[in-house]
Amino acid sequence: MHKETNIRSIAKGVSWRFIATGTTIVIVYVFFGRLDLAIAAGMIETALKVGLYWGHERIWHKVRWGKEKIEPFNLWFTGLPLSGKTTIADRVYTELEKLSIPIERLDSSEIRKVIPNIGFNREDRTRHMHRVGYLIKTLQNNSISTVASFVSPYRESRKAIREMVKNNIVVYVKADIESCKKRDYKGVYEKAIHGELKNFSGINDVYEEPRHAEIVIDTDKVSVDEAVEIIVEFIKKKYIK
Amino acid sequence: MHKETNIRSIAKGVSWRFIATGTTIVIVYVFFGRLDLAIAAGMIETALKVGLYWGHERIWHKVRWGKEKIEPFNLWFTGLPLSGKTTIADRVYTELEKLSIPIERLDSSEIRKVIPNIGFNREDRTRHMHRVGYLIKTLQNNSISTVASFVSPYRESRKAIREMVKNNIVVYVKADIESCKKRDYKGVYEKAIHGELKNFSGINDVYEEPRHAEIVIDTDKVSVDEAVEIIVEFIKKKYIK
Repeated sequence: MHKETNIRSIAKGVSWRFIATGTTIVIVYVFFGRLDLAIAAGMIETALKVGLYWGHERIWHKVRWGKEKIEPFNLWFTGLPLSGKTTIADRVYTELEKLSIPIERLDSSEIRKVIPNIGFNREDRTRHMHRVGYLIKTLQNNSISTVASFVSPYRESRKAIREMVKNNIVVYVKADIESCKKRDYKGVYEKAIHGELKNFSGINDVYEEPRHAEIVIDTDKVSVDEAVEIIVEFIKKKYIK
Repeated sequence: MHKETNIRSIAKGVSWRFIATGTTIVIVYVFFGRLDLAIAAGMIETALKVGLYWGHERIWHKVRWGKEKIEPFNLWFTGLPLSGKTTIADRVYTELEKLSIPIERLDSSEIRKVIPNIGFNREDRTRHMHRVGYLIKTLQNNSISTVASFVSPYRESRKAIREMVKNNIVVYVKADIESCKKRDYKGVYEKAIHGELKNFSGINDVYEEPRHAEIVIDTDKVSVDEAVEIIVEFIKKKYIK
């Protein structure tokens, strides 16, 4: 939830020295000023101060001052079905998690599994986007960043997300529709072409290309590894000090 | 996101003493063992160790070991419209926030404002409950507790919430329907009685009383202040060490 600032740690260093050196001087004074005894005192000091240090830590643990809220961001992956959004987003999520950033992964198909009966027409999608936006916003209130992957074919709904959340980074995973069809291991393009799936973005419904994406990944030119590096570097530079 | 355990703080005390006493002994040795100089050394030590302490803190800041995930809970307020759920839940939320618990407030009417077109019939309510459950679960994944207030009139949907989230505490805000009608400053009971509002729990739709509520607040006998105290004490005892 929080990270510690430099100024907080410096203040802890100063406050601890007051306690520790004060204790040493008092002990040495009690032993009447001989070095051998002062070293002996150092031993006693060692034992004592571990206890004091611990108490000091516990007191600081209660103090909120000097703790800084982590600024959350939202990585929003958009693109045609099977463009590679989920693959790249999963890898980016894993890399960002390693950096100890409080982060949550949101994937369209996962959410659709949990929340039943969300349609695919324009109205249903837009309503769904509002719910997802609310979820992201609530997580952001609690300093949690998000890695979200949704086809999100309409400009309007992507704009709604941008207005609801802060530090929104649109990643457009650009793939030629022919390439997507070739990757059609789920058989969904096949079904859409034969009219068995309706409102399928790119086939029988539009996919409105983003015009203001912060990052564009052209999957015909950039490998998954490279894409992950580009995105993680972007986040590191902008949001991780 | 995390709180520090006792064992972590003790370990910090021990590791710090190795650095601090080590430095003192080396400095005193360099000054050839005289007390006045040892005290002078103490001064130098003071300056030096503040820097060392700071570095020591920064290193520990990177170490995850000894940090413990906070166990999240969900306080679920259910009851008739105008029974007093929101009033009590708001106050409980404020009290728990003071305890530095990462916590989020979810209120039915707030969510309905943000997410348009959620109906009030059984099917709509149940679907809505699944979405709210998913939201709570996602927050819990990130150690965030919740204070939720929803009429939630059906046993079935309250059960769905209980199955989706962990540490679910149902607070049944029990109020006589006549008392609720008297508090009808919004005029909603009036409208429901005249058939202008459909699916209004307690009037033209059922409110199924909870049979397994962890806490029952009888608003005819217990004041808001007392209710807040009962609930906060329950949470303190069970979830805050």
